[in-house]
Amino acid sequence: MKFCSECAQPVSLAIPPDDNRQRYVCSACGTIHYQNPKLVIGSIPVWEHDGQTRVLLCKRAIEPRYGYWTLPAGFMENEETTTDAARRETFEEAGAQIELHELFSLLNVPHVHQVHLFYRATLLDLEYAPGIESLEVQLFSEAEIPWSDIAFPTVAHTLKFFFEDLATARNGGSFSFHTKDVWKPLGSQE
Amino acid sequence: MKFCSECAQPVSLAIPPDDNRQRYVCSACGTIHYQNPKLVIGSIPVWEHDGQTRVLLCKRAIEPRYGYWTLPAGFMENEETTTDAARRETFEEAGAQIELHELFSLLNVPHVHQVHLFYRATLLDLEYAPGIESLEVQLFSEAEIPWSDIAFPTVAHTLKFFFEDLATARNGGSFSFHTKDVWKPLGSQE
Repeated sequence: MKFCSECAQPVSLAIPPDDNRQRYVCSACGTIHYQNPKLVIGSIPVWEHDGQTRVLLCKRAIEPRYGYWTLPAGFMENEETTTDAARRETFEEAGAQIELHELFSLLNVPHVHQVHLFYRATLLDLEYAPGIESLEVQLFSEAEIPWSDIAFPTVAHTLKFFFEDLATARNGGSFSFHTKDVWKPLGSQE
Repeated sequence: MKFCSECAQPVSLAIPPDDNRQRYVCSACGTIHYQNPKLVIGSIPVWEHDGQTRVLLCKRAIEPRYGYWTLPAGFMENEETTTDAARRETFEEAGAQIELHELFSLLNVPHVHQVHLFYRATLLDLEYAPGIESLEVQLFSEAEIPWSDIAFPTVAHTLKFFFEDLATARNGGSFSFHTKDVWKPLGSQE
């Protein structure tokens, strides 16, 4: 951020009165430009058939992580709810109609200023098809998940939590809500 | 938003290529200025003593809703996690140290582009004190909650869910996760 979006004068970093952190402030018109984390929301679309559980993944047609696999997910928009966002992203990226269930995971990704939410979902039919941001859309059983080609750590964690809970549910347990903080950028050397 | 924060030229509303909604777009430098919902995060700080459960509320010293009571909560900041935000806001607004428990509620407020999250928490001591954004901080039992003077519907819903679950927990049940969409602005005539 270089200029004030209200008056076009240059902004500078300063700690406003009664605040305790630096913000982009316009000394011409006084506007304080707060910057806050964004929500990325998606679903885990599940198809059960012949006793086998498979999950719908999308191969990304856009950067970042072009060509890697992800659960359908994207930035929440203004004037929608978190469940609206999960359904919309699933339709936009995978052409898939779903019945949405409980919130399943919340993952903090503080270094990129994001919070990711995933809802469990049931795929309503097999009429899915890649949207403009996907190269392919495909169902994967647990054994088939391309773990080394998953686009984002939050998706890998959510899939691991899901298949762990699925095993629990098959033994009479139930799905639960999972949360995790992801601190390191993917591919970082630490 | 009137001007581009990157190049100071006027922005206009337009649907970018491969998008399906209007964004503020700069025709001079090509920057698309996305606007997304913000997370408001807080806690339900609980003090148990002599068999009585009380919750810590703050009387707001700032607009909106000056003079009304709220759970400690505020906008999540970049580079923190959702639990960091809950602890920070509880300390800033109520001077209170807490042990944080599970995520308790998620409330969508689409007309103001917000998602509110509240965590259950245990107050660690009685050394609380109003921060700069609070006039008073006070413990309330269920019977004492000032229901008609609660600042925000998301706080009222969260408190109702909390005391319902507390009754359930006293009968051998447990706390669960709650979600609700709040569509109407407070005081709207519909």
